[in-house]
Amino acid sequence: MSDPVLMGPGPSNPYPEVMAALGRPLLGHLDPEFLALLDETGDRLRAVFRTTNPLTLPISGTGSAGMEASFVNVVRPGDVVVVGVNGLFGERMCDVASRCRAEVVRVDADWGAPIDPSRLLAAHPSPAVIAVVHAETSTGVRNDIEELGAGKGDALLLVDCVTSLGGIPVEVDAWGIDIAYAGTQKCLGVPPGLAPMTVSERARERLVAKPQSWYLDLGMISRYLDSGARTYHHTAPISMVYALHAGLGVVLDEGLERAWARHRECGGALQAGLEKLGLELFAAEGHRLPQLTSVLAPVGVDEKEVRARLLAGGIEIGGGLGPLAGRGWRIGCMGHTARARNVTLLLAALGEVLA
Amino acid sequence: MSDPVLMGPGPSNPYPEVMAALGRPLLGHLDPEFLALLDETGDRLRAVFRTTNPLTLPISGTGSAGMEASFVNVVRPGDVVVVGVNGLFGERMCDVASRCRAEVVRVDADWGAPIDPSRLLAAHPSPAVIAVVHAETSTGVRNDIEELGAGKGDALLLVDCVTSLGGIPVEVDAWGIDIAYAGTQKCLGVPPGLAPMTVSERARERLVAKPQSWYLDLGMISRYLDSGARTYHHTAPISMVYALHAGLGVVLDEGLERAWARHRECGGALQAGLEKLGLELFAAEGHRLPQLTSVLAPVGVDEKEVRARLLAGGIEIGGGLGPLAGRGWRIGCMGHTARARNVTLLLAALGEVLA
Repeated sequence: MSDPVLMGPGPSNPYPEVMAALGRPLLGHLDPEFLALLDETGDRLRAVFRTTNPLTLPISGTGSAGMEASFVNVVRPGDVVVVGVNGLFGERMCDVASRCRAEVVRVDADWGAPIDPSRLLAAHPSPAVIAVVHAETSTGVRNDIEELGAGKGDALLLVDCVTSLGGIPVEVDAWGIDIAYAGTQKCLGVPPGLAPMTVSERARERLVAKPQSWYLDLGMISRYLDSGARTYHHTAPISMVYALHAGLGVVLDEGLERAWARHRECGGALQAGLEKLGLELFAAEGHRLPQLTSVLAPVGVDEKEVRARLLAGGIEIGGGLGPLAGRGWRIGCMGHTARARNVTLLLAALGEVLA
Repeated sequence: MSDPVLMGPGPSNPYPEVMAALGRPLLGHLDPEFLALLDETGDRLRAVFRTTNPLTLPISGTGSAGMEASFVNVVRPGDVVVVGVNGLFGERMCDVASRCRAEVVRVDADWGAPIDPSRLLAAHPSPAVIAVVHAETSTGVRNDIEELGAGKGDALLLVDCVTSLGGIPVEVDAWGIDIAYAGTQKCLGVPPGLAPMTVSERARERLVAKPQSWYLDLGMISRYLDSGARTYHHTAPISMVYALHAGLGVVLDEGLERAWARHRECGGALQAGLEKLGLELFAAEGHRLPQLTSVLAPVGVDEKEVRARLLAGGIEIGGGLGPLAGRGWRIGCMGHTARARNVTLLLAALGEVLA
């Protein structure tokens, strides 16, 4: 069995406690012991999302299922949805919103640059939803959220936190985020398979009564989560819930602020080291994610060959997307992978391959 | 940690090989080693579904996501969809199809009785889709499929195999099934979280170009599965794919026919034993599933109390649904749970509780 150090754009290496939890004996999805663990997972998600939202849950699919759940439950045909696009996941939001038959108003910025929040706020006088990606996994750029919450007016603020949650500050309540979703396989140190999600009471009042997706229907899912009802909807992915519960436990035991600091320190060291190797970082300074670094390959170097050689040595990094495709790499330091030893290893190994 | 014997309507107890596979070190979703394992999972699924369909894959959600993927990818607004309804999952199909804006033509039969295939075939002169549940998890009834494939004409035949796959014969190609989906947590002996699915070439030619679900868009997912393309769509749920791969390996090592025989023998022994205890079986004779038995509680017995006492002793069985709600139980013998020792245990324990 290969056991690579996972330094791509996700998945990251899971925490050992998470791997142990995956092996826990299976319980039924209506067993009171499992339901207590699911409730506790909700509590832990509230702590990590920094919210008191009662409707906080793991969606039974990967991060992209979280994106879809977010749109189908609040967007009605003809609704104006303003979407910030400065990478692949902003593009994806436009696609998902258009399949809900929304009127999509795009606000584009260059890949690698952040989106100016005032442009998003000025894009339409009365959007139903303003949607943006917090941490663009395709470019390593952070988009600012707080100003959007302050200026959103009657709109709902919908934020993709797939790569940000657990790695950099995400303040759902303080920033006025109405709908946020994440992935498990980035800064939470859990294998891919679930999408943590939280919905404000304000957004909850506007939920579509019968969304086009039955599987992601939050109204129905809520009746399973409700301890007074426990109405069967679909069978929860038990083992993955164990894993998420354990991963959130690790993050909260460490302390969320300390986890952010660990990501910040690793990302800073990695980015400094890459520049010291003579490489050029792709994302705009001041908006670089510590947990995901995009970097240009030296001219004349076959970036794919470099990745293959690193992988053969047991280290995975990711290729570029969009303008970075074929021209550079995306290097993650997320979750359990966010350790100084991995930064040291990657810089040394990359240095060897490029020498 | 509790480790109940799972004899409800699913999840069943996973095979030990499956639990070991869950603990395998994580690989990236574009790692060639993972992609080879994913391809092999497709091969194993083809063997278990008895099909040569190239488009055979695990959907990244539970069985109900498989149902949704099946409908959204072939149903267009206004399409006539004939649905057989003799239990909860037939009802669910109507709900899912209506969210695709289909014109749903219901063919109802009593819960506990099978649906006469000729009624489904006669329900409409030119339906786009005929949809039926093979093994109704809510009642323990088997609906006959073969006659539908023979008489479907231009319609696509869509079959829910969630509880049948691996437990009783499912012959996708021989029966002319165009779209079939299943769950992992029933007769395959894998925790819940994925939905095995297969699509005939005939159905593939009719796929909706841009289905309302982005996450379940089979056209896009195909480009990730395609070994020549490997276009990123969403991050595969790696650990669950390991688990499914291992579970299918166990089933195929045993031999599919032998696995069916094991389920048949366990179910037969269980049903005979329940009748010997003086209990009345709910599903119509001749169409009883061996892997899932519905049975009425004796008059005057609190069925919920019986379940609670069994669970306290480490044995889970399920409550009834629909006409069986509050009046009886659903007892599963599926996957790794389908062992004579578990039948012996359950009959003895139930006998004690009812004494």
